[in-house]
Amino acid sequence: MIKVGIIGSTGYAGGELVRILTGHREAEIVWYGSRSYIDQKYASVYQNMFQLVDARCMDDNMEELAKQADVIFTATPQGLCASLVNEEILSQTKIIDLSADFRIKDVAVYEKWYNLEHKSPQFIEEAVYGLCEINREDVKKARLVANPGCYTTCSILTAYPLAKEGIIDMKTLIVDAKSGTSGAGRGAKVPNLYCEVNENMKAYGVASHRHTPEIEEQLSYASGEEVVINFTPHLVPMNRGILATEYASLKKDVTYEEVKAIYDKYYKDEKFVRVLDEGVYPETKWVEGSNYVDINFKIDPRTNRIIMMGAIDNLVKGAAGQAVQNMNLMFGLDEAEGLNLVPMFP
Amino acid sequence: MIKVGIIGSTGYAGGELVRILTGHREAEIVWYGSRSYIDQKYASVYQNMFQLVDARCMDDNMEELAKQADVIFTATPQGLCASLVNEEILSQTKIIDLSADFRIKDVAVYEKWYNLEHKSPQFIEEAVYGLCEINREDVKKARLVANPGCYTTCSILTAYPLAKEGIIDMKTLIVDAKSGTSGAGRGAKVPNLYCEVNENMKAYGVASHRHTPEIEEQLSYASGEEVVINFTPHLVPMNRGILATEYASLKKDVTYEEVKAIYDKYYKDEKFVRVLDEGVYPETKWVEGSNYVDINFKIDPRTNRIIMMGAIDNLVKGAAGQAVQNMNLMFGLDEAEGLNLVPMFP
Amino acid sequence: MIKVGIIGSTGYAGGELVRILTGHREAEIVWYGSRSYIDQKYASVYQNMFQLVDARCMDDNMEELAKQADVIFTATPQGLCASLVNEEILSQTKIIDLSADFRIKDVAVYEKWYNLEHKSPQFIEEAVYGLCEINREDVKKARLVANPGCYTTCSILTAYPLAKEGIIDMKTLIVDAKSGTSGAGRGAKVPNLYCEVNENMKAYGVASHRHTPEIEEQLSYASGEEVVINFTPHLVPMNRGILATEYASLKKDVTYEEVKAIYDKYYKDEKFVRVLDEGVYPETKWVEGSNYVDINFKIDPRTNRIIMMGAIDNLVKGAAGQAVQNMNLMFGLDEAEGLNLVPMFP
Amino acid sequence: MIKVGIIGSTGYAGGELVRILTGHREAEIVWYGSRSYIDQKYASVYQNMFQLVDARCMDDNMEELAKQADVIFTATPQGLCASLVNEEILSQTKIIDLSADFRIKDVAVYEKWYNLEHKSPQFIEEAVYGLCEINREDVKKARLVANPGCYTTCSILTAYPLAKEGIIDMKTLIVDAKSGTSGAGRGAKVPNLYCEVNENMKAYGVASHRHTPEIEEQLSYASGEEVVINFTPHLVPMNRGILATEYASLKKDVTYEEVKAIYDKYYKDEKFVRVLDEGVYPETKWVEGSNYVDINFKIDPRTNRIIMMGAIDNLVKGAAGQAVQNMNLMFGLDEAEGLNLVPMFP
Repeated sequence: MIKVGIIGSTGYAGGELVRILTGHREAEIVWYGSRSYIDQKYASVYQNMFQLVDARCMDDNMEELAKQADVIFTATPQGLCASLVNEEILSQTKIIDLSADFRIKDVAVYEKWYNLEHKSPQFIEEAVYGLCEINREDVKKARLVANPGCYTTCSILTAYPLAKEGIIDMKTLIVDAKSGTSGAGRGAKVPNLYCEVNENMKAYGVASHRHTPEIEEQLSYASGEEVVINFTPHLVPMNRGILATEYASLKKDVTYEEVKAIYDKYYKDEKFVRVLDEGVYPETKWVEGSNYVDINFKIDPRTNRIIMMGAIDNLVKGAAGQAVQNMNLMFGLDEAEGLNLVPMFP
Repeated sequence: MIKVGIIGSTGYAGGELVRILTGHREAEIVWYGSRSYIDQKYASVYQNMFQLVDARCMDDNMEELAKQADVIFTATPQGLCASLVNEEILSQTKIIDLSADFRIKDVAVYEKWYNLEHKSPQFIEEAVYGLCEINREDVKKARLVANPGCYTTCSILTAYPLAKEGIIDMKTLIVDAKSGTSGAGRGAKVPNLYCEVNENMKAYGVASHRHTPEIEEQLSYASGEEVVINFTPHLVPMNRGILATEYASLKKDVTYEEVKAIYDKYYKDEKFVRVLDEGVYPETKWVEGSNYVDINFKIDPRTNRIIMMGAIDNLVKGAAGQAVQNMNLMFGLDEAEGLNLVPMFP
Repeated sequence: MIKVGIIGSTGYAGGELVRILTGHREAEIVWYGSRSYIDQKYASVYQNMFQLVDARCMDDNMEELAKQADVIFTATPQGLCASLVNEEILSQTKIIDLSADFRIKDVAVYEKWYNLEHKSPQFIEEAVYGLCEINREDVKKARLVANPGCYTTCSILTAYPLAKEGIIDMKTLIVDAKSGTSGAGRGAKVPNLYCEVNENMKAYGVASHRHTPEIEEQLSYASGEEVVINFTPHLVPMNRGILATEYASLKKDVTYEEVKAIYDKYYKDEKFVRVLDEGVYPETKWVEGSNYVDINFKIDPRTNRIIMMGAIDNLVKGAAGQAVQNMNLMFGLDEAEGLNLVPMFP
Repeated sequence: MIKVGIIGSTGYAGGELVRILTGHREAEIVWYGSRSYIDQKYASVYQNMFQLVDARCMDDNMEELAKQADVIFTATPQGLCASLVNEEILSQTKIIDLSADFRIKDVAVYEKWYNLEHKSPQFIEEAVYGLCEINREDVKKARLVANPGCYTTCSILTAYPLAKEGIIDMKTLIVDAKSGTSGAGRGAKVPNLYCEVNENMKAYGVASHRHTPEIEEQLSYASGEEVVINFTPHLVPMNRGILATEYASLKKDVTYEEVKAIYDKYYKDEKFVRVLDEGVYPETKWVEGSNYVDINFKIDPRTNRIIMMGAIDNLVKGAAGQAVQNMNLMFGLDEAEGLNLVPMFP
């Protein structure tokens, strides 16, 4: 059994890690880290785990944790993982960081968008960007995986094949994304209260959201050119789910079949990416609770643009599910172990 | 592998059977019955099952189905199962009926509350009421199981130990129940439209809901006296979940500990019944997607009443999950096979 | 124009006072009190009031306010109004207190249920319980009105005629109430976050909620006997609305027509109480945004009980609307001025 | 008093007309048309109107209606108004058509996008497109007003000043819009059921939605060039509200202040258009129940694009409110009569 430690186990992403790992046949959680709830029963913080988890919450002692765990998940605020990691820890255990600390290769870009000093830039180069479908082989060999952001996972995978194949004009790419509220975390803030979110919708972080450079960097690798995009996130009154609607001009005349063939080229053997049938557009509910990305597209000959759409569960493929998928790769397990989660409808 | 046929596989309870059985290691679905969608791909009706279910919907041919399947689930409107079942079918296969046709032993009571003529009363006596925690041994030997209703499962299990032990005055029992909207089914009706249900709450079927005699009958068996209750269901703007709040006068002075001991006597070895810690009251979200019943109670010395509360996922323990639990018992499998579903939060 | 001051104008009830008074033709708000947002533009706290309210938030200076305002609404936490009010203030202005400070005549009961020392018990006797339909004449002459609680307004008005006429056995009265989340206020607390409330339902304050003694006191006056009840509130995933389902045994055989006549006796001339047609049960959505109480009942001959149901918008008839109705009475205005709010559907 | 007839009074837009006109001091409804509910009490269809509307529903007899009413609102499916209107009717009464029949000047475009034969093309030229802020003077003189669509009202007003002033490259305009579910109407269809919409989000009508040519036509007039856009609507789990997020490349370097000045040039005297303060982005909840359009924008120097955002209540400014605003203009009343609706929060 792989021994797993979680730092930040009482946030929503941490809770989802616990839910998923509870059903994982080759891993067991040995450390439920949670600074806010030290010594409290984990199941008293997440009552759904009553009689399923007996453990109590523990402090964020990464050095001690490194001795006990084969892998540490950090589901923590930006900056924390970078401030704790060091060579000794990495020599003892593997780390899958759900924060943004190691996602961006250019430390200056990170520091500018996150308005934080990076405390361990020496590990940025080594860290593997854990978008499994794209970097699978590198993930297998990694000590330190930067688990992608929720918006970014959805946004990148939706456009990736067309960026890679040079079908779309990257200068025209616009990503309009919509997210359920669990993406905002479990912090007690007025804007996240039920009555503020319910029956409401808004854009936020317009032209300034931190997932922007992450999407840009990855799509730059894919397309071989520097990509600068507009990315606009929106808050939607639902718990889970991200829908990305992406617009780009086509660089050449293509048919539905040609574009479909490109998507299939990259994804037809990917268990967790489902390119839907023609005319069926992704709905977040169809992937809820699962690790799937549902993708489809529509060519608009009137404007010569293609509209790409992708949907994920932000807590699964957008966070904990992908983290477990990375863990499976790092330990040579079946990539889908613990992730055979059937989407729940309704 | 147990071969499973489902009649009514495209209703919400049918869909949940498919979701659960997809993760069951000893059963496979061989027949996706759906009168409304014959020959259509099942996954086009429930897009969450895309790439998970390849089959097409088939007609409700129970005679043919009986030859192919080891067990048939009927997730159909009242009266259909009773109109189709016969001795030849029951000699070939087992039936788990999710409708009310075989739940009530007194056919006159059934016909009065359901306003239907019962087409096969000869099987009522044989049918086992499939509330596993109470009738486990009988279920194991049954050919025909009447799977309990959603409200009734929750209402009965919440009060059962106290009724059985004679702690509460059954003449004073009142059940005020609240349900998510999936209980209303997938039929296209104005009152179930999003805009009619959302931001709204109402009682319905006041003093006339069909689950009333079912609760009364089972609690009569438990208490050894004829039980007549008030049962009031309410529609709540959420997809899943039933919460039952039950009131009864205490027949004698009891302490928290004494009542807790009674609940433990009946439930401490029951995997799917969780009696919560003192002061923690059930929330539907804590059981969502799982087969759990969460129960707790509060004694009010001011009124000499006890308030009992129970929560289930109406589609799981209230329908498909319990049906699979019954199947597991009938086939001698681990009772929890396919039902190790961790509640999903948020 | 009546000059109005509001202490606590940035809570949800305070915000609703502002919304309603904006449409009132004989009142103007001169003081937007809000300790948390002093000097900030009111419209920056409630952006719906952009270009409608130009004022900034001010401190809770009741002495200064008493000089400037003809009436002060206190929409504040328990204890605050009692700690600020004094004879000098009451000689200068009228006060409508939306907190519980002056609702309960027995100070010991108040202090026990609220776990607070009452700072000005000398005004309790004078204070008028502002349930307009019941205490209209006293309200007209009052200096200090205790505006009823949200649950209590709904619970009392639903049962009042039957309690008054001795039709129901008060010892058997049970109130099972359900409320939208705005009743929990705008404080930043984890249990009120969107993801905690959405798709969830729970009971809370079981056998201990503070509105219990308030309901009991008023129904004691109505019935002429001491009333002790079970009152169970539930949290529902919607913004607004309270639904109370009430159960009581009938003291004598009555017909639908007889009970309807009793309700009509008390309510047929009441603009804001609507006794619905036979068989139509209250839904919270039908009163949303308005000052109405919708009421109906069902006699169950099987149990000899009557089930009474009432629905209000908790922020209107349950708080700000009733407060304005009280103001109108106190100043000799048309009782409905500013309250001709048509319920919004959907 | 202006005598008003409504054809289609029991749809959501029709119901909203009734709600608004109930508070209008110079209009009274004399005809509640509803083919589906003839002879039924209107208040039994919309129980919120209990005791407010005593009338019964009547047939769609436009000839009779024309004699009794000064103005007829047609809140009906596409094609109906065009099939009923004729010169005799228009000589007797005014018509405000909430369907799309007279919105598009080119009948071929209408017939192509709506897949319908237009039955009275002779009135298209005469009909005035009732976007009050843009066509106010023409509306005042009109007999026949084409009330704009919900998406279109929001999309056009959000971009109009910049299109008019030539600031944005119209060839780059993309409108990504999100709507609450009341826009889908009150028809009983499976995709609009509560459990299908709740906790879900999807795009629909991608590159094919019928509001596209309407937006294009109006923005063509504004910009003086032929406009072809991508318009993508999305369904959001909320009752009311449309949010449009619009993207366009800037044709020249402009500052925030310059763009703000352009918006102010067109809207600073418009009561129902609120250009928000810098950095405050529209939220649908802030306009709910009101006739406001809230607008703001953000310049992104990285991409040289501007992101424009607008929010309306689809049933008010997007349908019934704008229709009443048009009526007020046509009858020389205060444009805001009946429309001083304060947005309701929460």
